[in-house]
Amino acid sequence: MEAFPPLNPRAPFIWYGGDYNPEQWPRAIWDEDLRLMQECRFRVATVGVFSWTALQPAEERFTFGWLDQVLDKLAAAGCRVCLATPSAAQPAWLSQRYPEVLRADPTGRRRHHGWRVNYCPTSPLYRRLAAQMAAKLAERYHAHPALVAWHVSNEYAPACYCEQCAAAFREWLRRRYGSLDELNRRWWTRFWSHTYTDWSQIEPPYANGEGSIHALTLDYRRFQNEMLLECFKLEREAIRQFSPDVPITTNLMRFYRDLDYRLWAREMDVVAWDCYPSVEDEPLDIALAHDLMRSLRDGQPFLLMEQSPSSQNWQPYNTLKRPGELRLQSYQALAHGAESVMFFQWRRSRGGIEKLHGAVIEHSGRSDTRVFAEVRALGQELERLGARTLGGVTPAQVGLLFDWENWWALEDCSGPTREKRYLETLRAHYAPFWRRNVALDLVFSDSELGRYRLLVAPLLYLLKEGLAERLAAFVQDGGTLVTTYLSGMVDECDLAFEDGYPGPLRHLLGIWNEEIDALPPGRTNRLVLNDGRSFACGHLCALIQSEGAEVLGRYGEDFYAGRPALTRHRVGRGQAFYLACEPEPAFLEHFYGELLGELEIAPVLETPPGVEATLRQTARERLVFVLNHGRAPATVMLPPGRTFEELLTGRSLSGSLTLAGQEVAILAEPLASESSRRAGS
Amino acid sequence: MEAFPPLNPRAPFIWYGGDYNPEQWPRAIWDEDLRLMQECRFRVATVGVFSWTALQPAEERFTFGWLDQVLDKLAAAGCRVCLATPSAAQPAWLSQRYPEVLRADPTGRRRHHGWRVNYCPTSPLYRRLAAQMAAKLAERYHAHPALVAWHVSNEYAPACYCEQCAAAFREWLRRRYGSLDELNRRWWTRFWSHTYTDWSQIEPPYANGEGSIHALTLDYRRFQNEMLLECFKLEREAIRQFSPDVPITTNLMRFYRDLDYRLWAREMDVVAWDCYPSVEDEPLDIALAHDLMRSLRDGQPFLLMEQSPSSQNWQPYNTLKRPGELRLQSYQALAHGAESVMFFQWRRSRGGIEKLHGAVIEHSGRSDTRVFAEVRALGQELERLGARTLGGVTPAQVGLLFDWENWWALEDCSGPTREKRYLETLRAHYAPFWRRNVALDLVFSDSELGRYRLLVAPLLYLLKEGLAERLAAFVQDGGTLVTTYLSGMVDECDLAFEDGYPGPLRHLLGIWNEEIDALPPGRTNRLVLNDGRSFACGHLCALIQSEGAEVLGRYGEDFYAGRPALTRHRVGRGQAFYLACEPEPAFLEHFYGELLGELEIAPVLETPPGVEATLRQTARERLVFVLNHGRAPATVMLPPGRTFEELLTGRSLSGSLTLAGQEVAILAEPLASESSRRAGS
Amino acid sequence: MEAFPPLNPRAPFIWYGGDYNPEQWPRAIWDEDLRLMQECRFRVATVGVFSWTALQPAEERFTFGWLDQVLDKLAAAGCRVCLATPSAAQPAWLSQRYPEVLRADPTGRRRHHGWRVNYCPTSPLYRRLAAQMAAKLAERYHAHPALVAWHVSNEYAPACYCEQCAAAFREWLRRRYGSLDELNRRWWTRFWSHTYTDWSQIEPPYANGEGSIHALTLDYRRFQNEMLLECFKLEREAIRQFSPDVPITTNLMRFYRDLDYRLWAREMDVVAWDCYPSVEDEPLDIALAHDLMRSLRDGQPFLLMEQSPSSQNWQPYNTLKRPGELRLQSYQALAHGAESVMFFQWRRSRGGIEKLHGAVIEHSGRSDTRVFAEVRALGQELERLGARTLGGVTPAQVGLLFDWENWWALEDCSGPTREKRYLETLRAHYAPFWRRNVALDLVFSDSELGRYRLLVAPLLYLLKEGLAERLAAFVQDGGTLVTTYLSGMVDECDLAFEDGYPGPLRHLLGIWNEEIDALPPGRTNRLVLNDGRSFACGHLCALIQSEGAEVLGRYGEDFYAGRPALTRHRVGRGQAFYLACEPEPAFLEHFYGELLGELEIAPVLETPPGVEATLRQTARERLVFVLNHGRAPATVMLPPGRTFEELLTGRSLSGSLTLAGQEVAILAEPLASESSRRAGS
Repeated sequence: MEAFPPLNPRAPFIWYGGDYNPEQWPRAIWDEDLRLMQECRFRVATVGVFSWTALQPAEERFTFGWLDQVLDKLAAAGCRVCLATPSAAQPAWLSQRYPEVLRADPTGRRRHHGWRVNYCPTSPLYRRLAAQMAAKLAERYHAHPALVAWHVSNEYAPACYCEQCAAAFREWLRRRYGSLDELNRRWWTRFWSHTYTDWSQIEPPYANGEGSIHALTLDYRRFQNEMLLECFKLEREAIRQFSPDVPITTNLMRFYRDLDYRLWAREMDVVAWDCYPSVEDEPLDIALAHDLMRSLRDGQPFLLMEQSPSSQNWQPYNTLKRPGELRLQSYQALAHGAESVMFFQWRRSRGGIEKLHGAVIEHSGRSDTRVFAEVRALGQELERLGARTLGGVTPAQVGLLFDWENWWALEDCSGPTREKRYLETLRAHYAPFWRRNVALDLVFSDSELGRYRLLVAPLLYLLKEGLAERLAAFVQDGGTLVTTYLSGMVDECDLAFEDGYPGPLRHLLGIWNEEIDALPPGRTNRLVLNDGRSFACGHLCALIQSEGAEVLGRYGEDFYAGRPALTRHRVGRGQAFYLACEPEPAFLEHFYGELLGELEIAPVLETPPGVEATLRQTARERLVFVLNHGRAPATVMLPPGRTFEELLTGRSLSGSLTLAGQEVAILAEPLASESSRRAGS
Repeated sequence: MEAFPPLNPRAPFIWYGGDYNPEQWPRAIWDEDLRLMQECRFRVATVGVFSWTALQPAEERFTFGWLDQVLDKLAAAGCRVCLATPSAAQPAWLSQRYPEVLRADPTGRRRHHGWRVNYCPTSPLYRRLAAQMAAKLAERYHAHPALVAWHVSNEYAPACYCEQCAAAFREWLRRRYGSLDELNRRWWTRFWSHTYTDWSQIEPPYANGEGSIHALTLDYRRFQNEMLLECFKLEREAIRQFSPDVPITTNLMRFYRDLDYRLWAREMDVVAWDCYPSVEDEPLDIALAHDLMRSLRDGQPFLLMEQSPSSQNWQPYNTLKRPGELRLQSYQALAHGAESVMFFQWRRSRGGIEKLHGAVIEHSGRSDTRVFAEVRALGQELERLGARTLGGVTPAQVGLLFDWENWWALEDCSGPTREKRYLETLRAHYAPFWRRNVALDLVFSDSELGRYRLLVAPLLYLLKEGLAERLAAFVQDGGTLVTTYLSGMVDECDLAFEDGYPGPLRHLLGIWNEEIDALPPGRTNRLVLNDGRSFACGHLCALIQSEGAEVLGRYGEDFYAGRPALTRHRVGRGQAFYLACEPEPAFLEHFYGELLGELEIAPVLETPPGVEATLRQTARERLVFVLNHGRAPATVMLPPGRTFEELLTGRSLSGSLTLAGQEVAILAEPLASESSRRAGS
Repeated sequence: MEAFPPLNPRAPFIWYGGDYNPEQWPRAIWDEDLRLMQECRFRVATVGVFSWTALQPAEERFTFGWLDQVLDKLAAAGCRVCLATPSAAQPAWLSQRYPEVLRADPTGRRRHHGWRVNYCPTSPLYRRLAAQMAAKLAERYHAHPALVAWHVSNEYAPACYCEQCAAAFREWLRRRYGSLDELNRRWWTRFWSHTYTDWSQIEPPYANGEGSIHALTLDYRRFQNEMLLECFKLEREAIRQFSPDVPITTNLMRFYRDLDYRLWAREMDVVAWDCYPSVEDEPLDIALAHDLMRSLRDGQPFLLMEQSPSSQNWQPYNTLKRPGELRLQSYQALAHGAESVMFFQWRRSRGGIEKLHGAVIEHSGRSDTRVFAEVRALGQELERLGARTLGGVTPAQVGLLFDWENWWALEDCSGPTREKRYLETLRAHYAPFWRRNVALDLVFSDSELGRYRLLVAPLLYLLKEGLAERLAAFVQDGGTLVTTYLSGMVDECDLAFEDGYPGPLRHLLGIWNEEIDALPPGRTNRLVLNDGRSFACGHLCALIQSEGAEVLGRYGEDFYAGRPALTRHRVGRGQAFYLACEPEPAFLEHFYGELLGELEIAPVLETPPGVEATLRQTARERLVFVLNHGRAPATVMLPPGRTFEELLTGRSLSGSLTLAGQEVAILAEPLASESSRRAGS
């Protein structure tokens, strides 16, 4: 795995900056903004995110003058620009003149104008006007010296249920299935007499209509995802015709259920995302989200496009980031693959729903604040750090399979329990690796699997075509696969496999899943390993029979006591594990600990609890980020006999490293042929 | 009370079978189905439940060919058919062509096509097409050798709020009340200026309209119940003209609030129901439901039309039936009056919302499964058991009064507490009898009361016309009546009685209910009996004055300490009890225990806790079902000096009977004149 | 502060009576009603509240005959009449004929006819017909000997979202802002591209439309409040043209969020309200509500228009008023400024949604009931008490600032926490004064402040124009101000102040609020006073810097330990406190205890816990109401050397007073110049 070049050679540094909305403010304030931006080393300002009405106050009238000035001023101040298209919120005049652009709710009823992301993604009119605006911006600013990236729209989200969408959906289905017979067959519509006898009978899965055909629901999710992605692509193409060399992105939202970001990432030049942890999130959760973002384009570094410098406003309880927390979270982003540290937003809006969202400059307009001081100190530190982290990659040997369509199908599925826990389970399987500082990628159904030695694929309910074969080849070639209960149940149309679960994975896993028991809250069973160790388990318990797999653990209670609960099937040069139930976390710690030992997959660094270590490997050196998430000092033993350069202090280190609470170190080591081989890139 | 003849003389055996949907499957699989059905002794297949589109893919086109084949194949395999009409889910082409058949939601807005039971029951078009289909099926299959019963539609449920319904409702009201003055008077519409000055002003109780006239809400419930029942009757008549001798039924849903099953049962040749216990249900709850079903047609045996052989899919947590649970529950049904043991469904659908519902043949298609083995063993055992249980009756001396309109009125009533607990209270009063194995019937406002010695009528809020007089006659003639707080408050129009509560029951009970105190959660009072025994009570406390009744217990606390809480009024040869508050369960155990002793009502058999015993008396013998609901063995002492034949083992038994956990016995004893007299049939 | 004259010189007594709806009953019952009314000394009957259809059964037909009779009968029986207009519920014929009078829901969809308060307040048609009815009533009855007050409509409540309202709202905005530019500027619509380019683009804040512009939401609340108030004023004017001398009121509902009762009170001749405590309410809560009502018209006595004599029906648990509770609550009303004790209702309706609401005459029609006996005894006692309490004022030196627009803005505000707790906080700051029997007025943004020595203004988030200056003048002149976190954040358009919080209060308070930390449930901090006393605090913690204020307490924990948590700024002859966090109640007890001592504000009387004492000062005497809310006897020490006449018993008292549980005393003392000066009127 090769290190990556800078995202834009004209901005070969960590992008420090954030959303800047000068159009909300009187011009008198702009010079003050620029002065303070320079003070805290803002290098990239995201401009124009919601400026549609400011740029086009009427259909035939465009007003780019203010934006010309803003870009020129930023350029003059040495600040680059990530220029946004404003399509996330259409102007009131547009909704009024063309009500068909308004989104319809899940009952098919058109909404009123308001909020944002309130347009029909299928609407030809919306598409035309959004693309026109993107083209005009690109035409006007493609050669502007400040321009370093394009930011298309903002936080895309579905869904619309209007008549335009219904008609487009029918066409989409016709292309997908070819014939109505094929659709009826794959959707199993003979159930409850749901056979369609004409394409025109198909409707979206209205909340007050058809909700019992899960294949319909699933396809409508796919369709809406595609419609929004087409909106993105239309704007992207409009931009590219004028600005072919500037990277184009949009900002994603963590594990956002309703859009298949793997498909989106393919169309983006770089992944960008908005990181808004809640008060419940632990460092592990944020690490997992960063790993997702890095993995969406197979390891390519990403942009942290938005984070709050202090609090948010839309959480139930908007706790302040504690002193040092902003810095620590910013370095955690870099540690997992970010090339930027950017904020929403520069200056707090005085009105509107987000007026209490944290900003670098708050309502007081003052810069003698705790928050400004932290932002300034971080900016200065990152300036000193320079470009050495850029392009670094994360050489992971472990992959964790995640799939949006699987998520959709699992959640829609009626039975065997109302709690599907897809993300919770993903997190539970991620934790043992994160706690050990073992690098891990998120992996998708279409990923190249050969680069991993261990693949973890929990709750793989929906199996996309070809995946079973590719997993089999992965194991055959020496890989280790771990999967669980609820796997291998349905195909891409949510149609159950005919030969019993785990369907096409049955031969690979060497087991047959005869039944599934759902335990209500409070009821548990036990998973007893052959060596006598015993762990609580429950939630869902698959009742399986071995068809060639070795039984490593059995149920300890109830009528299925003694039946297999954990199996291993050796196939070719590899092995495939099946975990039949949801175990307590201690089991996963134990299990993956043993497995990593067996596979000789080493951690980046061994650290005490609460201290995270990650590796980014650039073309010239290995950079180990060490992050002390605790409030107390912690000491980390460094590999004996090796010396590191600590990038933030410039010190040379060996033996051990003691970090104050919330402190960070970046340990650099030149890439020697030996150590680079050991890291397994 | 006489034993009943077999439901259909052409099928004089326990109907073992279930829902069979071959139209969902390729024909290649049909022969495999029949082979496996024979293996597990399926005797009756329910066919066609949701086949409308399969039978009529367009308004002018009918396709009965596949059904011809299915019926012929079943007949050839010795399997009888319960043939369903498909009207529970209209085809998409029908909703599309005639949108007026779609149901409107409680705001009056028409729904989109989808799900099932999504038709307007008032719609002339829906009615015409549903009846036409029923007629065509009856015409074609009435003489088919496999046919043993008709199953009209499926799980009827209200309600529609469309304009057609509104218009029909007005006509219904005009017939009911004759004049608008009479309606205004009985609905008490002068309250809040709600007087109607023209029939056309009356609207359904829309969720966004009139919700403050409870008589309107109550009448709309009655109206919708009637409209659906008319749908049933239209199909029934369409069938009868061709198939006059085959019994016709539809499948009911336990204590389903929204339909008055007592009215439905009158129109059905036999009651059939779908038994889907949740993980919270205890054996008592299922027993109560079976007793309801047996009582709906005054003791006539009923059909268990659906149950799952393993799990369900639509509960929050779909726990598997444990080994033996299916058998035990099946015998419990027979013990309470069922003539069938039938499943939903034969083969698990591969798609659609119920694809994870348990079935005899699951997605694997295999028959070497636990579930199949249990189904097969049960089928073989029932075949051995033969016809001896058929037609047996339950000679009950205790009646528990239940009334749907009372339920509706209670739940709609604003005050004195938001929790009316009708079913919970019914269950609480049922439990002491069930635990003692004292046979009990559900009794309705129109039931013949003279056959009972004890009538329990909790929460008799709404008193139908004539009931008070019939209860008085019952007591006068020697009966014992128990009723409670909230009784005798309103008439059939939810109009409060003028002379104070308990209204027309006041003289019978010899008390006047002056006030009602509602206790918030956590607050209790005490019910202190004259002998000093004391029980917690609360929830609702009626403050009553004796007007002739003997005071058996008084409140122990609060400002009404010392006021009567339990009274008995001796009237004629009988007595009427009034329980003024909701007591803890121990009180009801004590109270009914004493009462049964006093009335010399004997249990079927005395059993240890967890062992249930019921009696079914056929023309020739007494059959005592003994069901051990526990997991541990239990020993039951048999009446000394008597010998029983145990039907499942063929053994002869006397002295005592020891049952393994979850085991069942059926003890037969020839009907001697003496013992039959003691059982009191 | 002067004592007030009687509300109506023709009824110079405590108005004892209540809602009387004879039109619901057959005439045969009317004479019985009057006989019983006389028995319990009913003096004022509220008639006609929901009589529209009874008075106008068709648009062109009026039927006043029955009302003529009712009023004549009441007059003949010595009962006065508070005559209501019936506009709270329009007739069905009206909704049917003119559907535009029906209210639209928050999505803009018109509701069906039903319930009450279901009209569009903007509708010219509704307004015309309601005013016409008011005029007809006034014309017909203005000279009726029984008439003593007008009761316009009933329990006004918003809101409507119909097209008529939308259009009127646009006109309202045009008048308010003059230009669209000004509206855009003050609403900060450049946020999210929400700039309006034409007035016609502005829509109500539909639930499925614009919810992100808080200034819009706030203005729509103002607009709807005004529209309803215009309805009131139109009826009032229609009445006044015929009946200029009879006081006109409407009945308010406690701290009802959606109407700005301060604006309403200005338009009413006397405040009237409906007192329906829930089972959770403590005497303190009811006292606070009465104090609000007395304060709405700056100390003028008010009418207790409705209370239940026993239970309500619409609470979750409708507990009976315990014996004595009705009397105690009635005297509590008088103690806080009421001139009446009135009930809803006289005779319990037999049908409709309130048929289980308590009434003087319940469904039994009997008068030998506990409730009737209490009502009768109270009536007789009040008759004996006579007129001595009438017109008495409450000379308060403490004001508690409350503002409806602040409430609206706070609740709509997104961040910093989802729980704004405005009423809870108001109550917490009220409690220390109530517990000490220190008289307190509610004070509004437009109140005259100079009459108070201490002003408490918690959560003063939205600052109306001019209030900051008036508060500064208040302090400058020697007043003491206490305010808290979240104060001084936004202007009347919910636009954040530019210079940091607390905005225009910053100089007065001598602090700057840099940040606000929202603590999730379970997390707390500590407020440590300079003397070492320490109190738990949390919920919201403002991080402030002193800009001249003296620091009296600091945070004890977290990263802001040591930063100010309580400050005092001495300005002119006064002082301004800022409390930065929500403390535990013990702190407020301590803090206000100290402050009252320092300010030498004396209680009305020192009493043991659970005994409340209030002062009403008439033109001739001081009346101290002493209310024992406990169930046990309590002894109160009277000021030494003074002698009081106890009005209910006629006894002369000095030294001490022992009250039985739930007992009341009214201690009268002639107004000596000295004592009146000490009370500070």
